[in-house]
Amino acid sequence: MTAPSAAPLRYELFASDAPRTHARLGRVTTRHGSFETPAFMPVGTQGTIKGVLPDHVAATGSQIILANTYHLMLRPGEKVVAALGDLHRFMAWPGPILTDSGGFQVFSLADINRIADDGVTFKSHIDGSVVHLTPVRSIQVQNDLGADIIMAFDECPPADAPPEYQRTAVERTLRWAEQCIAAHARPADQSLFGIVQGGTDLDLREKCAQKLMAMDFPGYAVGGLAVGEGFEATQSVLESVTPLLSAQKPRYLMGVGFPRDIVAAVGSGIDMFDCVLPTRNGRNAYAFTHQGPLRLRNSQFISDDSPIEPGCDCYACRHFTRGAVRHFFFAGEMLGPVLVSVHNIRFFQRLMADIRRAIGEGLFDQWRRTDPRALLGPREVSAEGKGPRAE
Amino acid sequence: MTAPSAAPLRYELFASDAPRTHARLGRVTTRHGSFETPAFMPVGTQGTIKGVLPDHVAATGSQIILANTYHLMLRPGEKVVAALGDLHRFMAWPGPILTDSGGFQVFSLADINRIADDGVTFKSHIDGSVVHLTPVRSIQVQNDLGADIIMAFDECPPADAPPEYQRTAVERTLRWAEQCIAAHARPADQSLFGIVQGGTDLDLREKCAQKLMAMDFPGYAVGGLAVGEGFEATQSVLESVTPLLSAQKPRYLMGVGFPRDIVAAVGSGIDMFDCVLPTRNGRNAYAFTHQGPLRLRNSQFISDDSPIEPGCDCYACRHFTRGAVRHFFFAGEMLGPVLVSVHNIRFFQRLMADIRRAIGEGLFDQWRRTDPRALLGPREVSAEGKGPRAE
Repeated sequence: MTAPSAAPLRYELFASDAPRTHARLGRVTTRHGSFETPAFMPVGTQGTIKGVLPDHVAATGSQIILANTYHLMLRPGEKVVAALGDLHRFMAWPGPILTDSGGFQVFSLADINRIADDGVTFKSHIDGSVVHLTPVRSIQVQNDLGADIIMAFDECPPADAPPEYQRTAVERTLRWAEQCIAAHARPADQSLFGIVQGGTDLDLREKCAQKLMAMDFPGYAVGGLAVGEGFEATQSVLESVTPLLSAQKPRYLMGVGFPRDIVAAVGSGIDMFDCVLPTRNGRNAYAFTHQGPLRLRNSQFISDDSPIEPGCDCYACRHFTRGAVRHFFFAGEMLGPVLVSVHNIRFFQRLMADIRRAIGEGLFDQWRRTDPRALLGPREVSAEGKGPRAE
Repeated sequence: MTAPSAAPLRYELFASDAPRTHARLGRVTTRHGSFETPAFMPVGTQGTIKGVLPDHVAATGSQIILANTYHLMLRPGEKVVAALGDLHRFMAWPGPILTDSGGFQVFSLADINRIADDGVTFKSHIDGSVVHLTPVRSIQVQNDLGADIIMAFDECPPADAPPEYQRTAVERTLRWAEQCIAAHARPADQSLFGIVQGGTDLDLREKCAQKLMAMDFPGYAVGGLAVGEGFEATQSVLESVTPLLSAQKPRYLMGVGFPRDIVAAVGSGIDMFDCVLPTRNGRNAYAFTHQGPLRLRNSQFISDDSPIEPGCDCYACRHFTRGAVRHFFFAGEMLGPVLVSVHNIRFFQRLMADIRRAIGEGLFDQWRRTDPRALLGPREVSAEGKGPRAE
């Protein structure tokens, strides 16, 4: 069993914050262009970043976006996407794209009939039809979709799963990882990342990481975190696991997260993030700001002629008042969700740009102790932020 | 009673198609910029062109947009819009804006309690509260909103109203026009247009037009058409009435319409149009094309990798396939309605640009006999196109 060629992906390390933290500044280059790391990927579940046209996504500073294999496989189907060109053409996104494996959605969204050693059988949330998803099928689907980075099909136990289940899941994840490598038909175009599982069991995580490292993936992800285990437990796992992953390859923390979580994970050496928070909260009139969230439906904003966040350079803040945005939500106008989504994505991209600048200047550790965004966690943002990582 | 100063509006006539038709090529300049005529104004009922950010509205070639006084008066209220700057700031549209008077919506949308000589009493469609709208109040609201062109408050009888009601409505419309002129508090900033009523009674239309001309408005509109009287009757009224209106001022046909109607009205000398068709039909997956509408939900488009309309230069056609747009509608993604709205507005603006080019080249009459768009009427577009002129 050999790993896919690393040809379609190059990771360059520009600066490291060591020995203060493990934070690192770099760049990943794919066949569809580059993205600077640490990077935040907006989520385009069904082929769109909800409500935001690609030119406005690009204007937020986003350089890579994510799409969900589970959703696209069920509708319109990967063969349809392939017939229309590939996912880049389908989403009108010429830059880098990452697809997940479908595993997380199957384990969190779907009505599962059966988990077995060969894969998962579940009912489609669209029409109730029975679908069988295996490592081989996940890779076939992702080969058809054509993203630049694709993910191994893994088993994602809930945070409160008993130790025995976590061990079984890691064993399956490792077997499935080998099947994914073998099934990968486009290693010259697409880079397949392995995913470390193991819950909060540090020994199990370490064993999983080492086995995956031996398979020589072109990049590695940490999965099964931010699923309810709590901030301290997440950080403990990351501090332990991230340094084990190859320093020559990108490291991706899946489905995370709040600014606080991103800042902490960068400190452990993580390079890539994705989360639905900016867009999901945006659609609910929750705007991220340095000082915490604004609930823009609040009556205090009726005649507020300031932008969503003073000082922000996003399209929404440069053109619209809080009062107008509030009105759009009450009037049921699409531009309400669109504008706050645009602002929130830009908020996350400004955060990432500031993180990268701080690492480059050797000031990341100092920056994270003083920047108010490093404290923005779920308590400040409400329950809007919970839930599976697809929109 | 004197008319408002014509200072904030200048109409320039560049070319006329006479004696073949009354079509004319010109330009209207307001305090917020110019628009070329014949012009099509997308409708931004509640302060947005539904789903389309202002930069994308501008990219369609739209130079002036319309907003509805009735809707904005009820929510968020004209005082809120004024407190936030004015309608230009509220909508983030720095160019010319026109507001209607609220009359058409009151007569077509509202639950009317009473029509009297002083105005109309109706129930708000938002909270059922009783609202009284008079000529003076309509102008006060429009003064607060701050559009460049504002409209007199008129009575709009249904197409099948008896002759006696049409006469009463014209008399009220004329009295109300004088009251609007007297109430207009910002004649140096905003240009108040008079509205010709009179149903399909050509004598009544002529009398109304002459009385309004005597009031010396800076522009004139023809109202009460395309409300069910039929294409032939509309054209008969326009051929009779439009030439009576000052050749030195812009002429606006309210709430029209289908490409066929616009082309015919241009031939009678109309300069300005507005209609919800591009956006309302766009939201329902109906795309305008030279050859007639596409219903993009149709299964024939599942794997169609061509743009909505080959040859179209709009953002949607340059970036997305029919198959992707179809998927967005089935997946409930906002980008479906957004993209087809963008395409449809661009379709209308390309139509207007071609009309202007033909007039400028002295070829309008020949052009309208050969261009397939000159035939696109409601039968080709379905019942989606019916209904009141607000979204």
